Order: sequence, then structure tokens, then C-alpha cells
Amino acid sequence: MSEDTPATRHRARMQRKKSVVDERIDAAQTERGVLLVLTGNGKGKSSSAFGMVARSLGHGLRVGVVQFIKGRFSTGEEAFFRRFDMVEYHVMGEGYTWETQDRERDTRAARAAWDVACGMLARSELDLVVLDELCIALKYHYLDVNEVVAALQARPPRQHAVVTGRAAPPALIEAADTVTEMQVVKHAFQAGIRAQKGVEL
Amino acid sequence: MSEDTPATRHRARMQRKKSVVDERIDAAQTERGVLLVLTGNGKGKSSSAFGMVARSLGHGLRVGVVQFIKGRFSTGEEAFFRRFDMVEYHVMGEGYTWETQDRERDTRAARAAWDVACGMLARSELDLVVLDELCIALKYHYLDVNEVVAALQARPPRQHAVVTGRAAPPALIEAADTVTEMQVVKHAFQAGIRAQKGVEL
Repeated sequence: MSEDTPATRHRARMQRKKSVVDERIDAAQTERGVLLVLTGNGKGKSSSAFGMVARSLGHGLRVGVVQFIKGRFSTGEEAFFRRFDMVEYHVMGEGYTWETQDRERDTRAARAAWDVACGMLARSELDLVVLDELCIALKYHYLDVNEVVAALQARPPRQHAVVTGRAAPPALIEAADTVTEMQVVKHAFQAGIRAQKGVEL
Repeated sequence: MSEDTPATRHRARMQRKKSVVDERIDAAQTERGVLLVLTGNGKGKSSSAFGMVARSLGHGLRVGVVQFIKGRFSTGEEAFFRRFDMVEYHVMGEGYTWETQDRERDTRAARAAWDVACGMLARSELDLVVLDELCIALKYHYLDVNEVVAALQARPPRQHAVVTGRAAPPALIEAADTVTEMQVVKHAFQAGIRAQKGVEL
């Protein structure tokens, strides 16, 4: 009979954990492109998408990015990823909708960005397509959610797609393989700290 | 009196939104390093930290990364970010704790990685320090949470720090400026889809 010490208890617990993890990994054998939706009000949605861009570049994969919001500041992610031949980067040509206050202009800008996105979603040489803040364009009904979901579902079978933004509509969540809801536990902005380069910008 | 049309109502709503956003941005004027904690069970914690690394590199900032878990596969983020002189990248020298099943060995490995992290947290030339999966080392009590929080709080005032991992302890959440809890709405893994390069790896 083996001794009952913290070390042996830890070992037994970890052995059980290892067999659970191994079983789950063995069970998950399907390889195909996944559709990820990153939504919720918390910080981290777009950063997470850009982390996946970096990860993809580490594997030599080819990436397309469409940003459906152009902020008032130029962003570090745009400055950085435009350097790479393996990344096609498109930023929608207008500012925030609450900056422009012009529904028709916003709709035209969103449609033009969506046309670029559709082109990317049709090309199997792109391994990952990031549609950053697309949910905003859906929230304001600049784009039709059924049309968006249909284009995502018709993409090449091995292509990954990541859609970010608050308030992802139910039809998009339904269509997705992986959905994370990012919840604010707290945010520095609430304490009067402005958006910081490298963190938000 | 102006016409009441969908376009004018949209404009009025967006004007109100713009003034709220502008006021909040004007009020948030403090510039200093922030401590971010990305926790919860959902996908996106580490990716989000690596998105901030990319963003920082876009601004010409200097970054330190310590990964407190070495997975069974080599990761795209490591392959990618090791290419850059502006990034110092350290990966803990052992596997998952449920792989090694040896509490003492894990504790030594976590302490060695923490020593590297402490060195980074003491150097003001690093603009961002990412401590990926540090919460795992805290969860298993390989490291003392009070010691970790003290080192984070003593870091240079303009340095940003990002800590990721499930089950962030309350003392760490208390010390943080921004905390996001990433919740699983659904995960491809549950549907039998294995971890994919560029997405999880």
C-alpha cells in the first residue's frame, strides 16, 4: 500500500486529470475550419483575434483581416500586421457611426467592407479570415445577418473565421463552432485611465 | 422643426451617443501602466494577451513574455514572436502538471519561470510584460499569490502587465485595473473538433 502524503495525493489527482484530458483529446479528431465568435462587453475580443493572426503567422498560414470600425486613433495592430506579406489587411473607410451620424454613409461603408470580406471568404488560400467588429455593423442593421451567416457557412472547409464585436446576433452564435462571451469584471477606463497604446490601441 | 424620419432619428441617437463617448474619453486622462487579468474558462485569454503583444510591437514598444505552461505541441505564438528583437520570450521548462504528475518538479519549474518574470517586472525598459497561464501556477499553489501581487504592484509605473489563466484568485483580481472573465458559450472541442493551428495552437 502506498503512503498517503500530499505528494502522492497530488500525483493521484493529476493522473486522473491526465486520463480525462487524454480521452478528450483522443475524442476530438475532426480537423476543419472553425467559426469563432468573440462577443460581450469585456476587453479582449479584438486582441484575441489578433493573437490568432500572430499564431497563424507562426505556422506560416495566410490571413485576411477586415476591420469594420476605423477608430479615431491609428492602431498598433494595423501598423504591425501590415508589415507581413502573409496578411491582407483592409480597414473600413469611415469612422465610428456615432462620429459620422449619417446612417446612409455608414451603410455604404459597411457594405464596401463586407464586399472585401466576401472576397476573402471565397478564397481557399486564406487560412484565417478575421472580421473585426462585424457585430457592430449587424447591430445597426448596416448588413443583413442572414446574408453574413450564409457567406460564413459557404467559406472553404479548412478556412477559419473569427468574428468580433459586442452583441453578436443569435443567428451568428447558432452558426458558430466556438463562442466566447467576454464579461467586464472591471475596466481601467471606469477608474479614469485612458486607452493605452499596446493595450487598447 | 426637422422631419421625423429613420435617418433623422438615427442621427439624433448617434449625436447623443457621441457626446456620451466624448465625455467619457475626456474624463479618462490618466496615463499609466495597467494590470490586466484575463480569466474564465472561455477561449481567448492567451490569444488576447498575444494580440496586445502585436499591438505593442506596432507602436515600437518592448515586450517580455513568460509562458507558465509548456503544452504538448509547439505553439504558433512562440514561433512567431521569437522572431522579434523587441520581444523577450521565456517558456517554462516543463509540461502540464497533469502530464508530469510530480508536484515538487512542477513547483521548481514554476518558481524558475517566476524568477524570470520578476526580472522582467523590475525593468522599466519593458513596456508590456505578459505572464501567460500564471493563474494555473497560483491555482495549484506552486507560487504564493501575495508574493505575485506584490511584485506586480511594485513594477515600474508605466509598465503594462497582462496575466492570463482560469480561476484568477481574488487577491489578483482586486489588484488589477482591468479584468475580463471569458465565458464559454460553446466550444468546437465539445463537438469533437481538435485544437487547430492558428486558433488554439
